[in-house]
Amino acid sequence: MANEVKEITSRDVDFAKWYTDVVKKADLVDYSSVKGSMIIRPYGYAIWENIQKILDEEFKKTGHENVQMPMFIPESLLNVEKEHVQGFAPEVAWVTHGGSEKLEERMCVRPTSEVLFCDHFKKIIKSYRDLPILYNQWCTIVRWEKTTRPFLRSREILWQEGHTMHATEEDARNETLRMLKVYEDFQRNILALPVIVGKKTDKEKFAGALESYTLEAMMYDGVALQNGTSHYFGNGFAKAFGIEFLNKENKMVNPYQTSWGTTTRMIGAIIMTHGDDNGLVLPPNIAPFKTIVIPIGKDEKVLQKADEIKNLLIDNNISSKIDLTDKTPGFKFAEAEVKGYPIRVEVGPRDLANDLVTLVRRDTLEKIQVKIEDVLMEVSNLLVDIQRNLYDRALKRRDSMIYEAHNYEEFTDIANNKSGFIKTNWCGDVACENKIKDDFGIKSRCLIEDEEVNGPCVCCGIEARYRIYFGRQY
Amino acid sequence: MANEVKEITSRDVDFAKWYTDVVKKADLVDYSSVKGSMIIRPYGYAIWENIQKILDEEFKKTGHENVQMPMFIPESLLNVEKEHVQGFAPEVAWVTHGGSEKLEERMCVRPTSEVLFCDHFKKIIKSYRDLPILYNQWCTIVRWEKTTRPFLRSREILWQEGHTMHATEEDARNETLRMLKVYEDFQRNILALPVIVGKKTDKEKFAGALESYTLEAMMYDGVALQNGTSHYFGNGFAKAFGIEFLNKENKMVNPYQTSWGTTTRMIGAIIMTHGDDNGLVLPPNIAPFKTIVIPIGKDEKVLQKADEIKNLLIDNNISSKIDLTDKTPGFKFAEAEVKGYPIRVEVGPRDLANDLVTLVRRDTLEKIQVKIEDVLMEVSNLLVDIQRNLYDRALKRRDSMIYEAHNYEEFTDIANNKSGFIKTNWCGDVACENKIKDDFGIKSRCLIEDEEVNGPCVCCGIEARYRIYFGRQY
Repeated sequence: MANEVKEITSRDVDFAKWYTDVVKKADLVDYSSVKGSMIIRPYGYAIWENIQKILDEEFKKTGHENVQMPMFIPESLLNVEKEHVQGFAPEVAWVTHGGSEKLEERMCVRPTSEVLFCDHFKKIIKSYRDLPILYNQWCTIVRWEKTTRPFLRSREILWQEGHTMHATEEDARNETLRMLKVYEDFQRNILALPVIVGKKTDKEKFAGALESYTLEAMMYDGVALQNGTSHYFGNGFAKAFGIEFLNKENKMVNPYQTSWGTTTRMIGAIIMTHGDDNGLVLPPNIAPFKTIVIPIGKDEKVLQKADEIKNLLIDNNISSKIDLTDKTPGFKFAEAEVKGYPIRVEVGPRDLANDLVTLVRRDTLEKIQVKIEDVLMEVSNLLVDIQRNLYDRALKRRDSMIYEAHNYEEFTDIANNKSGFIKTNWCGDVACENKIKDDFGIKSRCLIEDEEVNGPCVCCGIEARYRIYFGRQY
Repeated sequence: MANEVKEITSRDVDFAKWYTDVVKKADLVDYSSVKGSMIIRPYGYAIWENIQKILDEEFKKTGHENVQMPMFIPESLLNVEKEHVQGFAPEVAWVTHGGSEKLEERMCVRPTSEVLFCDHFKKIIKSYRDLPILYNQWCTIVRWEKTTRPFLRSREILWQEGHTMHATEEDARNETLRMLKVYEDFQRNILALPVIVGKKTDKEKFAGALESYTLEAMMYDGVALQNGTSHYFGNGFAKAFGIEFLNKENKMVNPYQTSWGTTTRMIGAIIMTHGDDNGLVLPPNIAPFKTIVIPIGKDEKVLQKADEIKNLLIDNNISSKIDLTDKTPGFKFAEAEVKGYPIRVEVGPRDLANDLVTLVRRDTLEKIQVKIEDVLMEVSNLLVDIQRNLYDRALKRRDSMIYEAHNYEEFTDIANNKSGFIKTNWCGDVACENKIKDDFGIKSRCLIEDEEVNGPCVCCGIEARYRIYFGRQY
């Protein structure tokens, strides 16, 4: 598609420009005439299709069913739960006219679907036998963002949203954590993202939730990307919507609720975690094509062998493509790097004469000559190694960019001079969170549950109740 | 889900009421508080997921790639192609505000995406090397219908829309017909719908298209359901949008375009073609569960055998579920019928003592005792037979409801007294089409290409140029 591989800005020179270069040059997205909305091109959408396929299987394995709710929310319905509407009303798109007629009541395009699900749950939940209800929806939501960036912040967001109802608080709490774990495993094992998982502070939780859990990924530049959330609602929405069921003790009670969601933003996390100055680097487990086979020259034997290898890989469930365009080998190599195929298989006449081909791993750009008869085994092993290496490399970088602050002076020094997360103690008072936000523009990421709290709050100095991460965010 | 199987209105008494009963009682949809929008429940959505899976594979096999365009169209963009905007402007939903701010330019929610794709194509098509571009999109569109019915006519429509660009007219015409064939094969072989396929008249074609082809399914009540369309655009949109490419002769020319789409309406066609007074009847090739195993009583051996049979079927790729609720057998049978599982496997203590189980086929309600050791083979064969029988039965009914009219008197008689399609001769003048619509509220369905034209136009009496179907429509 007239796709020229041009220079990509170095990520250490201008990370924002690097990001834009990569998403454009790897043909992931294009800008559209619709302000704030992006076009997801075939290569970008293929990544999303892989994400959907794998996550959807996990949701079904854990007993969830897909449904489709309306995309519009009448204003009165959005208004039912007070905290929720306050959180979302400022950023919704309002539909006011159908054809030439003004609507009696305006409707917003869903920014999230809790109220739509609750409206439905009210009709279908009668008895404890109806519970749990474990629903998920794949759809597009709209939030009217002022400034947008492909995958990271967009007016239209492709996502999935799970919405579940349970007979007891315990069941709902378990579900919240169970789906958080599904997300964590997926992001670690498939996307190779060493996410930090924890509870949000009250200030940062989802509008209307009692507890919000988050997956925080650290990008190459040290900035956080909130990469998925799982919420426990208690029975607040159920009460607001009048959802009741007859429990085993024959009493009418309100059920307990969760919701959880992930979006195309995960693609942004992949790019900004693994990418380098040559372009995109895709973890094998999510790449649309795990290898690209590039024949060098037009020799019949070379072309035939290249095709054989591609077919061998595909037949063994290793998604692969072959580049048969009339571009120069150098151009093809550069393009393969921009697009981030995990392994490039170079098939050239000189190698072939010695029954060899060259594998180039995208993560390290290392070249490895292998015997043709071993190519399947070597590629298979290398894919496992690349997947592991990407995770380890990201983990190492992440850990090297977490700084401990014992007092406000240290916090100030880190906040002003370092990129990354700040690990510290916190008293639990929102006033301290607000002060840090006002002073440095930095928000809390999540609480740290597996470390002992010992010492004063980094901000006010009284005895701390929590270990916590702070960090700038996308 | 508090799902009681109650009486369903007979389809011969009140077909509209029968339809509503079935979609509700089979748990396919629920009504929502959002006027004109429906909720697609898990069982209904599972049918759509099967449709998506099978069609998506066909699209990919024929070289198409999925993309995602914006869901909003700025008014100025919708206005670029004149015929198109005239066709759609009266029925779009307008977004006028983002949060509390009035938009500088209002935007509609896409009613279809030709203009969005053209806006993108203009940027990515430069050379003949970039063609063909074969894109598809799965998404939701909005058309502001006044009266709505689940699956048939809804303000929100889940669909797929293919959009392709080609270097030559011939290539684009071939694509239009190729995708029409993909639809036809899918609807005949998977949905068991004996669709009539043909070209729309100029009056009935898609706004902006040069030619529209349609798949017309006849419902049980003789009314037509337009079940998919494929359009050839020539280079009209390309010219309006300034899309040009350098062809092999080194000249800048406009490419040729197609689009084609199918929607959740196909689920409505399944219901209204195959369903009966006991509820839904699903063709095995699209059913979320091909069999339901129902143990009779609570005998341990019965339960164990029922579970074994379910697992045996699943292990052999026959999607199956088991009903372990504490409802009565009679209730379970009725529910299995309402939900239209192609085969019900009854496992009871008396049968079991003789190493037998009973299969009940949903299409005929015939009961068949089979040896337990033969159950896999018998079920497999029966599924093939049910699929074939549903198609044949629908074809026979369809053909019995097609009436030939040789003159306006006959046409009038049929139009006033019969349900079904009217096959006749037409001169090609829109005045005759309009007269028939004014007199009877009946539109043309499609031209018949494989029959010789012989005789006068049914309306004006001058020599006919076309054989054509007329019929009422949903």
